[in-house]
Amino acid sequence: MTPFDQSAQLQAMLDVEVALARALADVGIIPATAAVDIETAAHSDRFDVSALHADAERAGNVAIPLVRRLTELVAAVNPESARHVHRGATSQDILDTAFVLQLRSAAPALVAALARVMISAAGLARTYATTPMPGRTWLQQASPTTFGLKAAGWLDLLGRCRERVNQAVDRALVIQLGGASGTLAALGDGGPAVVETMARRLGLGVPDIPWHTLRDRFVDVAAALGTTCGALGKIGRDLVLLAQSEVGEAFEAPESGRGGSSSMPHKQNPVRAVAAVAASVRAPGLVATMLAAMPQEHERAAGAWQAEWSTLPELITLTAHSAEATALALTELTVVPERMRGNLEVRGGVAMAEALSNALSEYMPRGEASSHVERLSRAAVRTGCQLREVAAADAVVSQWMTREDLERLLTPEQFIGSARVFVDRVLQRWGV
Amino acid sequence: MTPFDQSAQLQAMLDVEVALARALADVGIIPATAAVDIETAAHSDRFDVSALHADAERAGNVAIPLVRRLTELVAAVNPESARHVHRGATSQDILDTAFVLQLRSAAPALVAALARVMISAAGLARTYATTPMPGRTWLQQASPTTFGLKAAGWLDLLGRCRERVNQAVDRALVIQLGGASGTLAALGDGGPAVVETMARRLGLGVPDIPWHTLRDRFVDVAAALGTTCGALGKIGRDLVLLAQSEVGEAFEAPESGRGGSSSMPHKQNPVRAVAAVAASVRAPGLVATMLAAMPQEHERAAGAWQAEWSTLPELITLTAHSAEATALALTELTVVPERMRGNLEVRGGVAMAEALSNALSEYMPRGEASSHVERLSRAAVRTGCQLREVAAADAVVSQWMTREDLERLLTPEQFIGSARVFVDRVLQRWGV
Amino acid sequence: MTPFDQSAQLQAMLDVEVALARALADVGIIPATAAVDIETAAHSDRFDVSALHADAERAGNVAIPLVRRLTELVAAVNPESARHVHRGATSQDILDTAFVLQLRSAAPALVAALARVMISAAGLARTYATTPMPGRTWLQQASPTTFGLKAAGWLDLLGRCRERVNQAVDRALVIQLGGASGTLAALGDGGPAVVETMARRLGLGVPDIPWHTLRDRFVDVAAALGTTCGALGKIGRDLVLLAQSEVGEAFEAPESGRGGSSSMPHKQNPVRAVAAVAASVRAPGLVATMLAAMPQEHERAAGAWQAEWSTLPELITLTAHSAEATALALTELTVVPERMRGNLEVRGGVAMAEALSNALSEYMPRGEASSHVERLSRAAVRTGCQLREVAAADAVVSQWMTREDLERLLTPEQFIGSARVFVDRVLQRWGV
Amino acid sequence: MTPFDQSAQLQAMLDVEVALARALADVGIIPATAAVDIETAAHSDRFDVSALHADAERAGNVAIPLVRRLTELVAAVNPESARHVHRGATSQDILDTAFVLQLRSAAPALVAALARVMISAAGLARTYATTPMPGRTWLQQASPTTFGLKAAGWLDLLGRCRERVNQAVDRALVIQLGGASGTLAALGDGGPAVVETMARRLGLGVPDIPWHTLRDRFVDVAAALGTTCGALGKIGRDLVLLAQSEVGEAFEAPESGRGGSSSMPHKQNPVRAVAAVAASVRAPGLVATMLAAMPQEHERAAGAWQAEWSTLPELITLTAHSAEATALALTELTVVPERMRGNLEVRGGVAMAEALSNALSEYMPRGEASSHVERLSRAAVRTGCQLREVAAADAVVSQWMTREDLERLLTPEQFIGSARVFVDRVLQRWGV
Repeated sequence: MTPFDQSAQLQAMLDVEVALARALADVGIIPATAAVDIETAAHSDRFDVSALHADAERAGNVAIPLVRRLTELVAAVNPESARHVHRGATSQDILDTAFVLQLRSAAPALVAALARVMISAAGLARTYATTPMPGRTWLQQASPTTFGLKAAGWLDLLGRCRERVNQAVDRALVIQLGGASGTLAALGDGGPAVVETMARRLGLGVPDIPWHTLRDRFVDVAAALGTTCGALGKIGRDLVLLAQSEVGEAFEAPESGRGGSSSMPHKQNPVRAVAAVAASVRAPGLVATMLAAMPQEHERAAGAWQAEWSTLPELITLTAHSAEATALALTELTVVPERMRGNLEVRGGVAMAEALSNALSEYMPRGEASSHVERLSRAAVRTGCQLREVAAADAVVSQWMTREDLERLLTPEQFIGSARVFVDRVLQRWGV
Repeated sequence: MTPFDQSAQLQAMLDVEVALARALADVGIIPATAAVDIETAAHSDRFDVSALHADAERAGNVAIPLVRRLTELVAAVNPESARHVHRGATSQDILDTAFVLQLRSAAPALVAALARVMISAAGLARTYATTPMPGRTWLQQASPTTFGLKAAGWLDLLGRCRERVNQAVDRALVIQLGGASGTLAALGDGGPAVVETMARRLGLGVPDIPWHTLRDRFVDVAAALGTTCGALGKIGRDLVLLAQSEVGEAFEAPESGRGGSSSMPHKQNPVRAVAAVAASVRAPGLVATMLAAMPQEHERAAGAWQAEWSTLPELITLTAHSAEATALALTELTVVPERMRGNLEVRGGVAMAEALSNALSEYMPRGEASSHVERLSRAAVRTGCQLREVAAADAVVSQWMTREDLERLLTPEQFIGSARVFVDRVLQRWGV
Repeated sequence: MTPFDQSAQLQAMLDVEVALARALADVGIIPATAAVDIETAAHSDRFDVSALHADAERAGNVAIPLVRRLTELVAAVNPESARHVHRGATSQDILDTAFVLQLRSAAPALVAALARVMISAAGLARTYATTPMPGRTWLQQASPTTFGLKAAGWLDLLGRCRERVNQAVDRALVIQLGGASGTLAALGDGGPAVVETMARRLGLGVPDIPWHTLRDRFVDVAAALGTTCGALGKIGRDLVLLAQSEVGEAFEAPESGRGGSSSMPHKQNPVRAVAAVAASVRAPGLVATMLAAMPQEHERAAGAWQAEWSTLPELITLTAHSAEATALALTELTVVPERMRGNLEVRGGVAMAEALSNALSEYMPRGEASSHVERLSRAAVRTGCQLREVAAADAVVSQWMTREDLERLLTPEQFIGSARVFVDRVLQRWGV
Repeated sequence: MTPFDQSAQLQAMLDVEVALARALADVGIIPATAAVDIETAAHSDRFDVSALHADAERAGNVAIPLVRRLTELVAAVNPESARHVHRGATSQDILDTAFVLQLRSAAPALVAALARVMISAAGLARTYATTPMPGRTWLQQASPTTFGLKAAGWLDLLGRCRERVNQAVDRALVIQLGGASGTLAALGDGGPAVVETMARRLGLGVPDIPWHTLRDRFVDVAAALGTTCGALGKIGRDLVLLAQSEVGEAFEAPESGRGGSSSMPHKQNPVRAVAAVAASVRAPGLVATMLAAMPQEHERAAGAWQAEWSTLPELITLTAHSAEATALALTELTVVPERMRGNLEVRGGVAMAEALSNALSEYMPRGEASSHVERLSRAAVRTGCQLREVAAADAVVSQWMTREDLERLLTPEQFIGSARVFVDRVLQRWGV
């Protein structure tokens, strides 16, 4: 039973009906015995989930046949108590509050997976804080960065995502109880007291007003999840790119049976990173659906609410899966610092061109320095020599710099700027 | 000049270059005179916006030709100073920070429009707190609600949206300065000091780490805007439905030239509400694009960052437009309480069926009471009589209730439950 | 077993492996006995679907464990034959071709449901071709239309959608067989012959080239389905609006247990129309996902292909469900011509304003006529009189028209223009 | 003036009004002189586009102020003729038909750009039909493919997209003329004749029925464009990946000022390919908006139609831009066959593992062969030796194969299967 399968939903709905009955009894609207009878009848094994869902197709939602069946079960024991089943509530009260309970059940595993991603990213950031590797912009080698700085970026991103998810879920943990049109008229003056008692029993917050067609809290959850999928997708895409055969700077640890191919024996596919990328392709459409479902008509929507039913559970499941996969990918990541260092030498080591241009601009206008280094870089690429060789042989450069100067200047370890400062800040921020 | 047209962007980019130069001088990396020369040259009227954008097509972004032109202008005055233009920065530093400045410029008008929506909704909630009208679920008349309760829902929704927008914008107001690969290597050890000084000059926050490919803050803004468009769309849709010829409970005040038709002289189209609905149809796709653009490769994206450029400005403009339209729609709304009351009588006044069923369930099982009232309701609709008449003539009902009892019971004003309590809570929450 | 559950997918994958083995034998690449042994082993009841899916998580896709298990089963009988299992193919060949088979299985039910929608819409178009009802633009009453014309629009829309679905599915029914990198290198020169033989055995088309990362055919299917959901959503929305308590012109036939409410005995919710609306809210996000998944890297995608797996089946199932619901809604629709006629009288019958303005413009400039009728219309609405009365009493109008003229002029039946012509054309076009 | 700016729209709307007047005169509904007067007045330089759009905000659409202004201009010459301006039409008739004309204007440039992409892709397919390069699946090197086969895939994809765009545009080139509620009642019996005459004058098709809220034809155009953006995004992504510093197999030809960096002199960014990728990120959201806008209420939508206004033009412009960029990228592509060949040797040449495994499975079960080659491949990667060396030294392999056998077997040129056959088929299919 996962938090969003039909059995879990059934149990959550029954929990809501029981809490309602208990609250009605607490407030004195129904007899205590009725609440007891309802609680006694409300056992999920007395309900046929498939039959309820078949009936839901005709009824319009699954709460209607559930209430009918629950009433029958109570009536079989005590007809008087049956009068009090679902008293004052409307179907959406049950479905929305049940969903809130399911959300509360599902969140911890997701948040824990995000925490594992953070811990792994923090470990990488710490270990490789000053390990140079090619920076890559537009997928072209740029000036060097460090692998720790890249991992710190992942950590920072995920840290904010975990906060988002926690905050959005917290804000969404409010009860829904408004009755047919949101006034709780069927409870006379007792509505607010029932809401508060029932919320306390369920451990949920009390909203100022029923929110049958005010769906922003659920949309917040969706947005936080979608953003998290996007963030995990960024990590996943970086990992896939680093694992390319021609790059080989980091890859998912080989393990028997994982990431193989049905035709190619040498394959080691980045299956976990790819799961995160795939989730990031799917999430935007699901979030868009939740946003598109916001303009819900009057007191109960004719289509938009119904569109939420499978969308938000799907998005939660998807995000949790993506977080799990990413946590595993990072935890067991094989990092190859020597490949990172070696890749800085490909294409004549032109990744260091900025450092040279920077130094030259002490002696000539910046634009002129840049153009000159651009020419040297192309020569390096064309001839297959290293940029430092080409520069050392260049009449202009050699006016001001010796071969030793250039050797020192074009050492990636010397050109990682404030990478460590940034890494340390991020580690401190998230305390992992 | 709106905050997101090409001129405003040009000015913002120049402001960023000047702040960078000033910060570099403050920190002692470049001479103070260079900063002065750069500031002197950085006047937008010396730049040809169209030419910059034509060049951007080939360069890949508009910051590159801007820097080139700015360097020329500075060089014309002092070639030595030209060496220091754009020192340490990369194009994305300029474009992202400029966008943050544009966002800061654009936000107040949007937030003010949201505040106007809230004030108008609060006025309606207060005035019509106990004015009964048909509740409508699945677009069918349900038990009564009050117009004030509906308006309080709008207020509550918008209140949270305004908070979202404010918080997301606040969190996004951070500087971007990372240089080519995010290490600020070209500034040696001075990077963090330059970032802080420059941020202080621009009035922006300092991020722990450059965020070239960590786009969640912008996505937060997009999500807050999308949610706001959805919320305004809910208001707009309600207004359009209330204004229907057959409903006529509230409509946009007639005004010469507004909402007319080119063929039908009598038309009074709800053009403002429709603008809000239209925005809510467009926003989900734009938010989805921002989410889809999150997995940005390594240190600079190859496609996804570029996809943001027009999307987020479009979304801000759209949301502001929707908020303005909704504010006008609500401010001048003509409310017709008598139509609300009258509509409660259509279809035999069956909107009150829940009240009758509720009362009957004191004397018989709830399900039986419900079935009996369902039969009476259908009879009322079929015969065109009011439900209270049909009930009074019914052998079962008349066992326990007199015509007077029924008259009282089936009065909508008696069946609005906790509407006022809910309205008051919402008014108090938002203090409007 | 529905066409897209795990069992159906398993069977389809086995069918593909068998067809491959048979084709390899036909072409002479493997012995005929091997094909027989493979076919004998390929029975779905010898596979544990759950175990395969658990393994798929690590393997990256479900074809890999399937091939492993199938090889074991064959080897247990004849190790020599086991050498030939999955010969020349890659996992995606099996998964894509299996999906194509599943699509072929699923399509007829969907197309049949669309045909039922068309037949019902045609019946309504024919029966009510000249039955006047209020036209409604911007949800305001406009000049009259006929219910038949509205239904003919639904028919025309659905007719094109059925064509789209048929064409897109037909174009997608092509085999996938390219091997590891799309060259079929493992089959030497025999690749094309195997493809053709295998396609013939499966009854599928032969593509010019393997299409592992050329996904447009599946996107076409998605687009056709999304468009169909949108079309059904248009019908659903119209039905929901017509069924409103205050409009009441058409509604889903009452039936015990359908569309009721858990709190309100009188409710008759349009549950089928709402199912179609809900589907139209969800479909755009699913289509967007398929589009977003198009840029698939090189010879096999790292994320985008995987994102298709649940998206396209979901969309097919959703569309079929929406079509079924709409077919039922239309087939049993209760139409109330007298309410349509009666609603033309609400708000003073100003729906006929265009007819009056039109007539008046014979005697004065069009704009002046329009302004004059606008004033008369507002007077009618304000006073509660019918427009024809107000006009008859008006000094300007009565110069040229008698009360009888106005009576005739403002009769809706006289102002339905070419409704019948349009209805007949559409009926003839679709031959239903 | 581009096909979708405000001036072009104004001209198109005036063209529609003139065609309407001419058709009304042809059919005898208005005097010929009125049509002449209307045509004479309908010159775009007599209209203030900005003022019309300012008025549109209040009127609800831009056709209303346009008709007002046109009527004034005609009235100034001949008040009698002014009576006949816009006769029988509604605003949406003008806006929709004008959009159709704009679409017709915009399509040829887009289709021509797609043709240029096809011609370039065909050239590459032909030239490099048998040039081996690493196939790449999950971004890992797989068995070899040829660059020509990859380019043939691009061609095949684009060929189908061009067909889609052509067909969708052709089907959308139909006139809209239905009047207020789609019955053309204001034209008496003359409606169909006017529609046909007007359509002939504009060179547009005649729909069976007005389609104010039946938007599938426009959605088809959107879907075709979105699919095309996705297809171009696939090409763009492949190009970006091939151009990576560590891959370097193909790149956009260097050109002064294109693809440079504001900080790094050596950069050569793939700006054109990235433009195509960026478009593919944006298109899904825009298509989703068009789909979401399909459920348009009754005879004129309250929000959804309005949401189309900027969305479809944006999508057309975006697709054309993406096609132009891709055409340039492919036309000037620098292909480096020696890098392709060289990259097949990286990581021990394990890209050829399938060939070895395939050969070994002649002597042992396929699974065993695969496992054995997997071990050899890992050894090759670990030791830095080529797979053929490792295999030659292996006791198992050397039982059956000599070093010479292995040398021949593991030559990529020998393992490209049916690449040429597939390339030739695609070239023949598209005749380019």
